[in-house]
Amino acid sequence: MSAAISPLAPKKYPSMPIVDGVRIATAEAGVKYKGRTDLLAMVFDEGTTVAGVFTRSKCPSAPVEFCRENLAGGAARILVVNSGNANAFTGKKGRATTAAVGEAAAGAVGAGRDAVFMASTGVIGEPLPAERITGFLEGMARDAKPEGWLEAARAIMTTDTYPKVATATASVGDVDVVINGIAKGAGMIAPDMATMLSFLATDAPIAAPVLQELLSKGTGKTFNAVTVDSDTSTSDTLMMFATGAAARRGAPVITDARDPRLAGFRRALNRILKNLALQVVRDGEGARKQLEITVTGAKSSRSAKKIALSIANSPLVKTAVAGEDANWGRVVMAVGKAGEPAERDLLSIWFGDIRVAHKGERDPGYSEEATSAYMKKDEIALRVDLGIGRGKATVWTCDLTKEYVAINGDYRS
Amino acid sequence: MSAAISPLAPKKYPSMPIVDGVRIATAEAGVKYKGRTDLLAMVFDEGTTVAGVFTRSKCPSAPVEFCRENLAGGAARILVVNSGNANAFTGKKGRATTAAVGEAAAGAVGAGRDAVFMASTGVIGEPLPAERITGFLEGMARDAKPEGWLEAARAIMTTDTYPKVATATASVGDVDVVINGIAKGAGMIAPDMATMLSFLATDAPIAAPVLQELLSKGTGKTFNAVTVDSDTSTSDTLMMFATGAAARRGAPVITDARDPRLAGFRRALNRILKNLALQVVRDGEGARKQLEITVTGAKSSRSAKKIALSIANSPLVKTAVAGEDANWGRVVMAVGKAGEPAERDLLSIWFGDIRVAHKGERDPGYSEEATSAYMKKDEIALRVDLGIGRGKATVWTCDLTKEYVAINGDYRS
Repeated sequence: MSAAISPLAPKKYPSMPIVDGVRIATAEAGVKYKGRTDLLAMVFDEGTTVAGVFTRSKCPSAPVEFCRENLAGGAARILVVNSGNANAFTGKKGRATTAAVGEAAAGAVGAGRDAVFMASTGVIGEPLPAERITGFLEGMARDAKPEGWLEAARAIMTTDTYPKVATATASVGDVDVVINGIAKGAGMIAPDMATMLSFLATDAPIAAPVLQELLSKGTGKTFNAVTVDSDTSTSDTLMMFATGAAARRGAPVITDARDPRLAGFRRALNRILKNLALQVVRDGEGARKQLEITVTGAKSSRSAKKIALSIANSPLVKTAVAGEDANWGRVVMAVGKAGEPAERDLLSIWFGDIRVAHKGERDPGYSEEATSAYMKKDEIALRVDLGIGRGKATVWTCDLTKEYVAINGDYRS
Repeated sequence: MSAAISPLAPKKYPSMPIVDGVRIATAEAGVKYKGRTDLLAMVFDEGTTVAGVFTRSKCPSAPVEFCRENLAGGAARILVVNSGNANAFTGKKGRATTAAVGEAAAGAVGAGRDAVFMASTGVIGEPLPAERITGFLEGMARDAKPEGWLEAARAIMTTDTYPKVATATASVGDVDVVINGIAKGAGMIAPDMATMLSFLATDAPIAAPVLQELLSKGTGKTFNAVTVDSDTSTSDTLMMFATGAAARRGAPVITDARDPRLAGFRRALNRILKNLALQVVRDGEGARKQLEITVTGAKSSRSAKKIALSIANSPLVKTAVAGEDANWGRVVMAVGKAGEPAERDLLSIWFGDIRVAHKGERDPGYSEEATSAYMKKDEIALRVDLGIGRGKATVWTCDLTKEYVAINGDYRS
């Protein structure tokens, strides 16, 4: 709906390698959009393990409930994702759709229905007719190719202004493995339009419980540390698939999350998760600036993160950044409203390297001119030191602009 | 800063009666604004009791800390309020200012410093020079008159586009008493500009602990049930003063909050609190529409209120209302993210009398045309029934418009 590409879009895309054991197909199913792909199938070789992290919403979409059930099996053969319709708040009809798509997808790859995973993103509350999707799956499974990660990222876009991909290599034992990831999302949610979805795959041989632990722990400082508008989707889905194909090249099968041979893999995975999460923030609806918020000196890391998110979700902080205004009074307000331990007279605040407030008062060396110059940048770093402990956390968000209101308030008129 | 008066402003102001035992003075102290009053003194006869409710911010302003200390005494002789500077995040200098103003105010009315109350609203982090205020207090105390409630409301405005007053009479025993109130606020907070302040006075003879209980309980469904932007001020202050002057006309002195003779007074007080709270919402920065959100059928009233506030604070719900879009998908999202018990398949949602969703699906009789016509009104009532219990709550907010972003993001540029 928003025509222009975000000014924070990547200048170039990485060349995406194949992931041994993964094949990709996209299609123009016409669920809602015309003249673009809106259906993605990712087919996995036998032996692929799976892990997932889903929305905390108490009203999750039908596909989220479907995936949660199948995750217990720990094995995946196919992932089906459509854009244009979220299949959320669709009641019994929604469950009938996931059942029909699940059956067709299982048939297309000759697997059990518990090896199927799916996600939907788009309008909430509109029934999603399964037949728009099911007829495509057999052909897609047959024709799927190892290449096509960027096309996969395009097929799942909604209000996104650019596709989001990331890749890394790591060693498991002495064997190189690949991790690829895609994501979509332009608000934490904009239920008529958007949601956050991300899918990763690797050829590393990693048992499902280990994969789950890696993924769950990896989200804390990445996907769970970004916010566009504080609104939580009914459909947020992050899944990772490990085909294990690298075992044929001698990679050891990892069955324990404490295995030291995972160290490099864990670092590479966390880097990809952070990369994709930041791409979502940088495509935040109406975003003109990225804002990194670091809280140090808090009572605990948990407390630091709560305060950082209170700042990141404050409309007054976000509009100030949009207005290129180093309004540290609003930062103090957001620290105060977080409800976490803080002492006004110990607080210090920096924009970039410029300390604007120190020990509860305006910094004596405060320069309006230097601060204003800094606020013109398109990446703003804000740091708050509470001076009462050793807890710290960093979160990321974007500014709140008139375009956000226009995208979310004007599109029906 | 915002020139135009809110379209939701009252069409006319009530004629404000005097409150026996209260005298009022305003002045152009030039704290920050030019050519308008910015200082209010309210002088109380001896024997006046006092109650107060303050911000929950962990970084409260110096005046809030000053009032909290003095509240223990339960007696008030003078209230001093300035606009233009919040005296918040001003460290030791801030405390020196409240001490100096407190001493001057006490001297002006010949009382102890513990009978002085004060509030400040405006820019955060700028030192507030006490001498801008202290020199006026003796003259103001001397010249204060029983009339002037509307002028009092004007003197404490910041980004408000209209002054906020309300009045009611009630019987205590068989004696009529008056309750007058004023308020200011245009965001829950906009620290450089705004904050929520409200002051009430009555001539009813009510002991301080009883007054405190009435006020604390009265805020739950009034001031604590409104939100403009989810941001909590460092300075929010609601105080009430009871001069007891009506005792001379035979009103009984009330020393027990359970006294049945308080019933009418309690109702009148709650009506005024709600009236003033709604005036704040209707002057919300950039507001074009008032949104009343009622949640019924929740597990408990506490749970209902948490869900109602989750809806009221959702930027996506508020922008949808600005766009006259009955976007119930976003309402579902906000219910889901509240983290309270809810079952998607039992949810029903109404805009006005139009049921748009029923038992977890779009209502079969949904009419886009009827709903769109309703959304053009300037007062929108949204109801969500959760269908799982008997808890209910109502909260009020306003829409989120481009003007909100402009007021809070553009004013420095």
